[in-house]
Amino acid sequence: NSLWVQSRNRWVACFFIGVITALVAAFVDIMVHLSKEWKFNVILKYMLSKCNVEQRGTASGCMWETMITWILYNCTLVSVAASLVIFVSPIAGGSGIPQIKCYLNGIAVPQVVRLKTLLAKAIGVACAVSGGLAAGKEGPMIHSGAVVGAGVSQGRSRSLGIDFGFFKAFRNDRERRDFVSAGAAAGVAAAFGAPIGGVLFSLEEGASFWNQNLTWRMFFTAMISSFTVSSILSWFNGRSGWLSWTGLANFGVFENKDYNIWEIPIFLLIGVFGGITGALFNYLNVKISCFRKKYVSTKFSRFFECLLVAAVSAFLGFVTIFLVDDCQPVGVNPNTTQVNQMWCKKGEYSAVASLFFQNPEESVKSLFHSPMNSFRATTLVIFAVEYFLLTLWTFGIAVPSGVFIPALLTGAAWGRLFGIFVEQLFPSVTGIDPGKYALAGAAAQLGGIVRMTISLTAIIMEATKNITFGLPIMLVLMITKWVGDIFNEGLYDTHIDLAEVPILGWNPPKMSRNILAEKVMRSDVVALELRERVSRIVEILRATAHHGFPIVDRIEESPTQSLPDYGKLKGVILRSQLMKLLENRILENDRGSIYGPVDLAELQGDDQDLTVEQLRLSQEEKACWLNLEPFMHPHPHRVPLNTSLPFIFRLFRGLGLRYLFVVNDDNKLRGVITRKDVARFRERRHNNQYLVDELYIAEDRSN
Amino acid sequence: NSLWVQSRNRWVACFFIGVITALVAAFVDIMVHLSKEWKFNVILKYMLSKCNVEQRGTASGCMWETMITWILYNCTLVSVAASLVIFVSPIAGGSGIPQIKCYLNGIAVPQVVRLKTLLAKAIGVACAVSGGLAAGKEGPMIHSGAVVGAGVSQGRSRSLGIDFGFFKAFRNDRERRDFVSAGAAAGVAAAFGAPIGGVLFSLEEGASFWNQNLTWRMFFTAMISSFTVSSILSWFNGRSGWLSWTGLANFGVFENKDYNIWEIPIFLLIGVFGGITGALFNYLNVKISCFRKKYVSTKFSRFFECLLVAAVSAFLGFVTIFLVDDCQPVGVNPNTTQVNQMWCKKGEYSAVASLFFQNPEESVKSLFHSPMNSFRATTLVIFAVEYFLLTLWTFGIAVPSGVFIPALLTGAAWGRLFGIFVEQLFPSVTGIDPGKYALAGAAAQLGGIVRMTISLTAIIMEATKNITFGLPIMLVLMITKWVGDIFNEGLYDTHIDLAEVPILGWNPPKMSRNILAEKVMRSDVVALELRERVSRIVEILRATAHHGFPIVDRIEESPTQSLPDYGKLKGVILRSQLMKLLENRILENDRGSIYGPVDLAELQGDDQDLTVEQLRLSQEEKACWLNLEPFMHPHPHRVPLNTSLPFIFRLFRGLGLRYLFVVNDDNKLRGVITRKDVARFRERRHNNQYLVDELYIAEDRSN
Repeated sequence: NSLWVQSRNRWVACFFIGVITALVAAFVDIMVHLSKEWKFNVILKYMLSKCNVEQRGTASGCMWETMITWILYNCTLVSVAASLVIFVSPIAGGSGIPQIKCYLNGIAVPQVVRLKTLLAKAIGVACAVSGGLAAGKEGPMIHSGAVVGAGVSQGRSRSLGIDFGFFKAFRNDRERRDFVSAGAAAGVAAAFGAPIGGVLFSLEEGASFWNQNLTWRMFFTAMISSFTVSSILSWFNGRSGWLSWTGLANFGVFENKDYNIWEIPIFLLIGVFGGITGALFNYLNVKISCFRKKYVSTKFSRFFECLLVAAVSAFLGFVTIFLVDDCQPVGVNPNTTQVNQMWCKKGEYSAVASLFFQNPEESVKSLFHSPMNSFRATTLVIFAVEYFLLTLWTFGIAVPSGVFIPALLTGAAWGRLFGIFVEQLFPSVTGIDPGKYALAGAAAQLGGIVRMTISLTAIIMEATKNITFGLPIMLVLMITKWVGDIFNEGLYDTHIDLAEVPILGWNPPKMSRNILAEKVMRSDVVALELRERVSRIVEILRATAHHGFPIVDRIEESPTQSLPDYGKLKGVILRSQLMKLLENRILENDRGSIYGPVDLAELQGDDQDLTVEQLRLSQEEKACWLNLEPFMHPHPHRVPLNTSLPFIFRLFRGLGLRYLFVVNDDNKLRGVITRKDVARFRERRHNNQYLVDELYIAEDRSN
Repeated sequence: NSLWVQSRNRWVACFFIGVITALVAAFVDIMVHLSKEWKFNVILKYMLSKCNVEQRGTASGCMWETMITWILYNCTLVSVAASLVIFVSPIAGGSGIPQIKCYLNGIAVPQVVRLKTLLAKAIGVACAVSGGLAAGKEGPMIHSGAVVGAGVSQGRSRSLGIDFGFFKAFRNDRERRDFVSAGAAAGVAAAFGAPIGGVLFSLEEGASFWNQNLTWRMFFTAMISSFTVSSILSWFNGRSGWLSWTGLANFGVFENKDYNIWEIPIFLLIGVFGGITGALFNYLNVKISCFRKKYVSTKFSRFFECLLVAAVSAFLGFVTIFLVDDCQPVGVNPNTTQVNQMWCKKGEYSAVASLFFQNPEESVKSLFHSPMNSFRATTLVIFAVEYFLLTLWTFGIAVPSGVFIPALLTGAAWGRLFGIFVEQLFPSVTGIDPGKYALAGAAAQLGGIVRMTISLTAIIMEATKNITFGLPIMLVLMITKWVGDIFNEGLYDTHIDLAEVPILGWNPPKMSRNILAEKVMRSDVVALELRERVSRIVEILRATAHHGFPIVDRIEESPTQSLPDYGKLKGVILRSQLMKLLENRILENDRGSIYGPVDLAELQGDDQDLTVEQLRLSQEEKACWLNLEPFMHPHPHRVPLNTSLPFIFRLFRGLGLRYLFVVNDDNKLRGVITRKDVARFRERRHNNQYLVDELYIAEDRSN
C-alpha cells in the first residue's frame, strides 16, 4: 500500500515540478518582454521624438544621447544580474548546464540545486537578457528546472529553512537525481516547447541507466511544463485557451517548405563550417576563461567586466547600425514586429537594428522566415562576426546566461549568407529559400559549440515545429560533431574539465585494459569493525568527510606498515546512517543493548548537515559500543584486485556507483575506488596511438 | 589505429543497415501498391463492367460474382503468406516485435535474425496486406530491420552459407545486439517516417544501458533509412528528388489545426475508452491464442485458418457495404483516392467501401482528414466493431502481420465518432474537426493494446508530421496506459509471457528484498580447474549446452554430497573460447606446451555452430591438458551468498549480464545465477499486498 502511495506521489511531484518550472520560465519571459516594451516605447520613442526631423538619420548629437541613455539602461539591468551572481549565489552564473551535467553524472556540486540559486538565476537571467547581452535564457531555464525538481521532490528548502514534511521517501541520492533529471527535461520543454527534446537532453547529458518508468515520468513533467508555459503565454498574449505558444523560443513555423536531394551537399558544407567555427569558439572561450581566472578574479573586477560587456554590446550595435547602411522599406519583412527607423529615412527601417535590438529569438525568427532580400550580405557578415565575438566574451562572465540562442542567432546569420550565395550560384533555380539555410546554419553553429547529438536534433525540430527538415538537421549536426571533435571537446565538457570535476565519459578510456584495480584503488581506507566503540566512530566522523565506510570482520594494526591489515569485507554503512544511530542513541554498553526496538525506516534516506558536535554525546555514551551489523548494507559492490579499468568503469557507469571496494582472493578488504579514482584516467591520442593519462583532480567533499 | 577502423566500420555498417532496411520496406510497399492497383483496376473494374447498368446497385448475382473473384484473389495471396510462415520460417509469423524485444533483452531466440526469416517476412507481409487482412506492414518492418541489422553487422549469412569476411570484430553478443537495435530503429523509421520514434522504440523495448555513441548511431541508421525510403517512394511516385514521402505509413499532414483547453477532458475520455477496449483486446487475444494452441495446432489447420480469415474479412466487407447504405457524392472527400461506387448510384461512392477496400493507411488518412460529414455515425460504429474483431482474430494467425495500423484504423473510426458526438453536443461551437478526435482515438486504441509510452508518442507525432498535438496525444496515451494496466499487460508482454520467455522487466519485483542469492542460484554448477584434461572438457562440452564455465582453483569430490566442493573462483571461460582452443590445438602434454605463440585476438569474438565431434580430437590429444589460465576472463561478476534479489536484478539489468557467480565469504564458488533464475521471480498483487511468485520457465539453450 505504501508502495502505491509512493508511486502516486512521484507523479504528483512531477506534476508540480512541471508547473513550477513553467511558472519560472513564463515569469522570465514576461519580464524580458515587458522590459523590451519599455525600452522601445519609452526610451527609444521618447528620446528619438526629441530629435527634430533634420537631426534624424544623421550623426547628430541627439542620436548619440539616445545611445547613451540606452547603454545606461542596459548597464543598470546587467549590474543587477551581476550583483546577484557575485554577491548572492556564484553558482548561478553561466548557463548552469555543465553543473547539471555533473550533478546528473553523480557528482555532488554544492549549492547547485538550492532555492537561492534559483532566485538569483531567474531574476539574473531576466536582467541579463533585457540588458541586451548576447545571452540566452534557455540554458538557465534548464538549470532552473533542475532546481525546481530537487526542491519539490524533497518537500523542503534549506535556504528558507522550511520543511513541508511531505515526500520524505524521496530524500535520498537516487530519487533526488531522478527528479532533477525530470526537472531539467521540464526546463528544456519550457524553453523550447520541446518535451521530447527535453527527455532526450536529460538522457544524453545525465542518465546512464534507461528506465521506462523514469523516462515516462520525465516526459510527463516535460509535457506539463510545456503545456503550462503555453497556457500562460496564450493568456498573456490575449488569446487565452489557445495553446499555440509552446515555449519561450518561438521560431515560427516553416510552412510549405521542402528540400531537394541536390541541396544535401550544401547542408554538409554548412555542417563543416559550423564544426570549424564551433571548435574555434570553444578554443577561444577556454583561452578567455583562463585569462579571466588569472586576471579577473576579484569581485569588483568581475562586476566591472559585466558592465563593460553590456556597454560594449550596446555601443557596437549602435555603431554598426550607423556604419552599415542597410535600410529596407517597411513592409518587406512581415516578421519584423519592432520597426527600427534609426538613421533610415521615413518609411524605412534598419535591417541591422532589427537584428541587434530585437530579442534574439525574434531576430532568429526574422532570419528564418524573412523573404529573400530582407538582409544584405554585408549586413549578415558583419553581424555574424560581431555577434560571434560578443557571445564568446559573454559566455563566462558573472551573469546567468546561456549560449543556445546566441549561437543559433550567429549561425542563422551566416547560414542565410550561404542561402544568398546559393541563389547567386544557381540563378536559374527558383524557390531557393534562404530561411532553410539559416536553419541549417543555426543548427551547425550550436552543434559545433555544444556537440550534443540526438537531443539537439529533437530540440531544433520541435522548436521550429518542423519534422521535414529532420534529416538535413541531423546530417548537419553529425558532420558538425565529427569536424568539431577533431579539434576539441564540446563547450560544456571543456568547462567541466576546466573545473577539474571527475565526470565519467560514455566509454572507458581506450587501451586501458592493462590498468588493474590495484593501481586504480586507494589503499588508505578508513574501515570499521562490526562492533565499534562510539569514541572511535565520533573521531572518524570528525576527521574524515567520507560518504560511507566499509565494515570488516577485524582490523589488525600492522607493526611494519602504516596501514592496518583489514579482515573480510562484511558490509558498508553510510555516514548519514552512523549519524542517525548516534542521534537516536542506538548504543550498547558492556552489558548489552540499551535501546528499545528500532524502526529501520526511520534510520534511512535522510541526509542532513549535522555535525558530530551537535549530537552532544556524553563521555559515558562515548564509552559505549555501536553494533553496526543489523544496520549495515551487507553486500556492497566489490571486485578482486586484478579487475581491469574498463570493467570497473562499466560498473560505475551502468549502476551509478559512488564507490567500489577492492578485495583480495580471500575477500579481505584491500582498497576503495571512488568515481574520482576512475575519472582520473583519461585517454589521449598521440601519434595515432592511444595513451592513458592520469590527471590531477581537485579534492572535494564528494567521496 | 585498429580502434579507429573499428569505429569507422560501425558507421559504415549502420549506413548499409539503414539503406537495406529501407529497400526492404520500399519493396513491400511497392508490392502492396501494385497489387492493390491490379485488384482495383483489373478485378473490380473488369468484373463490374460486366454488370449492366440495372444490375449495379442491386443485390444481383453479378455483384456476388465480383465478390467471389475478389475473395479468391485475396485467399491466393494469403495462402502464399501462410505457406511461407508454416513451411519455411515459423518465426516469421506475427509482428515479430515480441521476439525482437526478447532478443534485445538478452535472450537467444533461435532463427529470429536469419535471412530466411527476413525473406519469409517481407514477401509474406506483402501478400498478407495485399490479401486484405486486417494486418499492418509496420511491425514486420521493424523485425525486418532487426534482421538486416544482425546480417549486415556480421558480414555473413548462415542461411546462404556465405561469409563475406568483413566486420569480423562485431561477431559477439554485445556488438550484434547493438546493431540489431539500430536495425529495429531503422525499421520504425522506414515504416512511419519516424527516426526519433525509432530510436526511442529501440530504447524503450530493448536497451537497458544508454550510451550516447550507440544512440547516435541508431539515430543515424534510422535517418538514413527514412531518407532512403523517402527517395525511393518519391521516385516511384514520379517526383524524384522531392523528399516528402518519409515513411510507408503516410497519414497526411494536419494543417492549421489547433486545439483548445476545453477539449482536454474529451481527449481524456477517449484515453479511458482506449484503455478499456485495449485491455479487452488483449484479454480476448490471449483467450484466442490459448484456444489456437490447443485446437489449431497442425500445419494444415493453421493454413486453413489463414484462408478462413482472408475469406471472412473480404466477405464481411462486401456484406457491410451491401447492408450499410452510406453513399456519399463523389467530391466531398478530397482524400479518397480510390472511388468505390459498388452498390451506390452513379456519381456517388460508398463510404464503407472506401474504409474496407482501400489500403488501411489510406483509410486512416481519410478518417483523419475528411471533412465533417464524410462518414455517418452508423458506418463508423459498424466498421469499428467489425475491424476490431477482425484484428483480434488476425493477430496470431500464421502470417506476418502487425497490429499497429489495424489498431490505428479501429481507433480512428471510433475517435471520429467522438468528434461527431462533440459536434452534436456543442452545436454552437464552430470549427470542431472530427479529424483530431480520430487521431486521439487512433492513439488511444493502439496505446491501449501495446502500452508503449514515449516512443509511441514520438512515432504518432512524426507519422502525422504534427507537433502541436503532442500534448493531447501524450495525455491520451498516459490515461490509456493507466487504465489498461489495471486490467492486464500490453499485447507484446502478454505474448512473451505466453511463450514462457525469461524476460526481465524494468524494475525488480516489489517486496523481494528478503530473497537472497542463496535461494535464487542454482548449485549444480559445472566448473573447470585452471588446468584441465582435454577429455574432461570434451565430455563437458558434449554433455551440457552452457554458454560459459566458471574456473576454480580446485575441485574436490565430496564423499557425502552429490555436488563437488569447489575452490576459489578464478575466472570464467566461454564455450566458444574452449572450442577455439581445442580447434587450434592449444594443448599441453605432461612435458609442457606443444603449441607456438598464440594470437589472442584470433581466439575471440566468433561464435560458431561447431560441435565437439567436428573437431576430430585424437585419443592422444584427449590425454593432453588445456591450460585455461592465460585465456580465461580473470574477474567475472560475483556476489556473496547474502545478496538480495533487487541487487542481483539491477546487476543483470544495468550491465546486461548473462550470468553471475555466487561465492561464499572465502570467495569459494557456491552457485550460478542466470537471467532465467532472476526472471523466475514475478510480483503479484493480492488483496493489496505484493507477493512474489516463482514461475516455471521453459527450458531452452539460452544459458
